[in-house]
Amino acid sequence: MTNDLLNLSLLAASIWSPISGGITSPDGFLAAGISAGLKPSGKKDLALLYVPEGSCCSGTFTQSVARASCVDLCIDRLNASQGKIRAVLINSGQANACTGSRGKIDSEVITHELAKRLGLSNEEVLICSTGVIGEAIPVEKVKSHLDHLINSLDKNAYLDAANAILTTDLQVKQIAYQAVLGGRRVCIGGMAKGSGMIHPSMATMLSYITCNVGIDQTLWDSLIKRVADASFNAITVDGDTSTNDTFLAFASGHELDAKYLPALEEGLHLAAQYLAKAIARDGEGANCLIEIKVEGAKDEMDAQAVARTVASSALVKTAVHGSDPNWGRIIAALGRAGAVFNLNDVQLWIGPFQLFADGMPVDFDRQKVINYMKQKLQGKYLIDDAVVIRLKLGDDEGTSTAWGCDLSDEYVRINADYTT
Amino acid sequence: MTNDLLNLSLLAASIWSPISGGITSPDGFLAAGISAGLKPSGKKDLALLYVPEGSCCSGTFTQSVARASCVDLCIDRLNASQGKIRAVLINSGQANACTGSRGKIDSEVITHELAKRLGLSNEEVLICSTGVIGEAIPVEKVKSHLDHLINSLDKNAYLDAANAILTTDLQVKQIAYQAVLGGRRVCIGGMAKGSGMIHPSMATMLSYITCNVGIDQTLWDSLIKRVADASFNAITVDGDTSTNDTFLAFASGHELDAKYLPALEEGLHLAAQYLAKAIARDGEGANCLIEIKVEGAKDEMDAQAVARTVASSALVKTAVHGSDPNWGRIIAALGRAGAVFNLNDVQLWIGPFQLFADGMPVDFDRQKVINYMKQKLQGKYLIDDAVVIRLKLGDDEGTSTAWGCDLSDEYVRINADYTT
Repeated sequence: MTNDLLNLSLLAASIWSPISGGITSPDGFLAAGISAGLKPSGKKDLALLYVPEGSCCSGTFTQSVARASCVDLCIDRLNASQGKIRAVLINSGQANACTGSRGKIDSEVITHELAKRLGLSNEEVLICSTGVIGEAIPVEKVKSHLDHLINSLDKNAYLDAANAILTTDLQVKQIAYQAVLGGRRVCIGGMAKGSGMIHPSMATMLSYITCNVGIDQTLWDSLIKRVADASFNAITVDGDTSTNDTFLAFASGHELDAKYLPALEEGLHLAAQYLAKAIARDGEGANCLIEIKVEGAKDEMDAQAVARTVASSALVKTAVHGSDPNWGRIIAALGRAGAVFNLNDVQLWIGPFQLFADGMPVDFDRQKVINYMKQKLQGKYLIDDAVVIRLKLGDDEGTSTAWGCDLSDEYVRINADYTT
Repeated sequence: MTNDLLNLSLLAASIWSPISGGITSPDGFLAAGISAGLKPSGKKDLALLYVPEGSCCSGTFTQSVARASCVDLCIDRLNASQGKIRAVLINSGQANACTGSRGKIDSEVITHELAKRLGLSNEEVLICSTGVIGEAIPVEKVKSHLDHLINSLDKNAYLDAANAILTTDLQVKQIAYQAVLGGRRVCIGGMAKGSGMIHPSMATMLSYITCNVGIDQTLWDSLIKRVADASFNAITVDGDTSTNDTFLAFASGHELDAKYLPALEEGLHLAAQYLAKAIARDGEGANCLIEIKVEGAKDEMDAQAVARTVASSALVKTAVHGSDPNWGRIIAALGRAGAVFNLNDVQLWIGPFQLFADGMPVDFDRQKVINYMKQKLQGKYLIDDAVVIRLKLGDDEGTSTAWGCDLSDEYVRINADYTT
C-alpha cells in the first residue's frame, strides 16, 4: 500500500481501534522500568522488554558511520540468533557512543549479566543506549539493579518502561491498537523516545513495536522495512541523525492467515506513524506538527525526496512558525529536492487553501490561510492537528508523506544557551 | 590544487594583492548601477556589466528544477554564442521566478531592447533577476531606464553596480586582486549578492568575476568549475537553494602563457572564496563565519561531503552561536555525511584546541575553547575571523573546506515574523 493511500485509509473507518496497554498489550510480552541512578535527576532510566519464546525480531538502525557500539552489538546478535531475540535492555542517561573500545566491552558485560539471570544465551539479548554522547554507562550501577529490574517485569509496567527510555522528551510516547483478524484478537503495541536535544548531544530515536502474530522472519523483515520507511524514516526535527537510532519490531504468536497480511500492515503503519508523529510533534521548541503530502510524482522515490526536503527546510519551518503562507519557500525546497517534474504542472495547498497552480501563484485569501496556520500553532500536543502542506507534482502515481515541526527561536535558545 | 593546499597557500605570502576597482578593474570592462524604481525603497536596482569584445564567459547555475526562466535564457545564450557574451543586465526587486509563461517573454523583451541599444545580437546579452519569487519584472520601467543605464556605464561605477544587485544584504560584496604574471599586470575583479532572506522569498546568490587574460573557452570552463566548487558551492546559510543562483566568470585580454595558469587559478580562487565567505558571513542573523576544514579523507568527494554536512548542521550552527564546544554534534554530523572512515582514526579541533581523538573525547580546557568561540562572535564583519572546526578523518589525501554561519534566534525571528 502506498504511503498516501494508507493515509486516506487511516482517515476512513479503520478496523484497528486504540486500546490501552502499550508495548505489552500483545500476549506474552512483559516490561519493566526503574531508576538505577543513571540520570542525575533520579528519574526512571533503565527499561527491560521481555519477549516470549518463538518470536521473531526485525531491526532498523542509524546509518551513521559514527554509530554507537551497542548498535553494532544489536546488528551482530540479530544475525547470530536469526531474529530470535528474547530481551532488550534500554538505558537512558549515557549514549555509550564515542567511548572508544570500552563501549563494546561494557555492552557485552551488561548483556551477559542479564542473559545469565534470565537463563538466555548472550545472542538472545540486546542493549540500546541513549543519552549524552561520549559518556560511558556506569556498568556497576546497572549490574546492581538487574535483579530489581527483572523482578519488576510485568504486563502492567508498560508505562514504566515507556518513561524509563526518555531523555529530554516532554511527553511519553506509547500506543496500542487491536483488531479482530480471522476471528482472533490481534494487538499491536509500541513505545518510543524522541530526538529532543534540549541537553547537548542528546540525540537518539528509539522505537519498539510488538505484535501477537506468528510470521515468517523474511516476510516480517520486508514488512517492517516498509513500515519504517513510512514512519520513522519520514520524520525530521532538525535533519541531524543520531549515533544510536534504533527501531526494533517483534512478532510472536499464532500464525496469521496470509489474507490478513494487508490488514496487519495497516495496523503496523498506524502504530509506527503515531509514534513517529509523536516524536516530530515533541521536537525541540516545536509548537506544531507539519505534514507534507506529495502526490502525482514520477515515482515513490521522487515523492519521498520532495516530502522530506520540504519537511526539513529551515525556511519552510520558520514560515510555519510565523504563520506565513510563504509558498515561494515551499516551491524553492521542492525545486532542490532532486525530483523530476514540470513546474507548470505543480499545484500547492496549505490546508484546504490552494496557493499555486500553472507555474505561478493563484489568488488566495491570505488572511484565511494565516488563520488556519495560527490555529494549528495554538493547538495543544495533538498528533493529528498538523499544518498540512500538499503538493501535486503531476499526474503520475508517486505519493509520499513526511512529518516535521516548526522551527522556533526557542529551538535556537535551547540548543545555543547550554554553556553561556 | 586541492582546496586545503590552496588555503595553506593563501595564508602564505601570495603573489596576489588586493586593489580597489572591483568588477571593472580588468581592462575593458564597464559597469553601471542605477535606480529604476523596481525596489519600493528607491535604492539602486538595475545594474549593467559591459564586457569587451573577444571575451569568453563561463556560467554556473542553480540546480533547482523550479529555476527562473532567466536562468534558462542564460544557459541557452551561453550555448548559442559559444561563451561570447557582451553584456549582463541584473535587476533586483523581482526574481521573475514562478511567473508562468510571461517570465520568459519579459526576459526576452528586455534583453532585446538592451541588445538593440548596444548594437549587439540577442545571443550576446544575458539577464539575471533577484528579488521576490512570484513577482514579474516591471518591463516598461526597465525599458524606460535602459538609456540612462547605458549612459552611466563607467570604469569607476563598480560600486554602483555592486550596490544595485543587492536585495536584503547588509554589506556590499566586491573585491579585486592584481598580480604580475610574465611581466604583465593581471587583474581579477568580482562582485556578489548574498542569500539574505530577510524579506520572504528573497533567495538568490549572484556572483560575477572578471579577468583580463585571454584563455581558451574549454580551459576557462574547467577552471571556473573548480573555482565554483571550492567557493560558491562550498557555502551554506540555511541549506535552501534558490531559483535564480548564478555565477558568471569572464576572461578577456592577451593570452596567458600556460605556465602561469596555476597562478591565475590561485587568484580566481582567492577572489571567489572572498566573495563566498562574504556571503556566508552576511547570512541572516549571522554573528560569525564558521570554517570547516576536512583532511585525511578517502578522497576529495568524501571530504567535501563531510565539510558541507557539518557546515549545514543546525545543531553545530546553534552550538557555535552559543559558544558551546559541543564536539558530539560535530561527530554526529560527520557520521551521517556519507563518507567512509573509521571513528577511531578521527581527530577534531576547534581553533587550536584538540577535542577528540581515538574514538573518544580528549581532556581539554573547556573555558579556553569557549573563550575562543566567544571572541569570534564578538568580531565585526571580518571575512577572515572564522570559528575554525578542523576534522582529520585518517591518513588519506582527501581535503576540503566549507563555510557557513551560526544559527541565531534572530534568524528565526527574521524568517518567521514577516506576517505576524
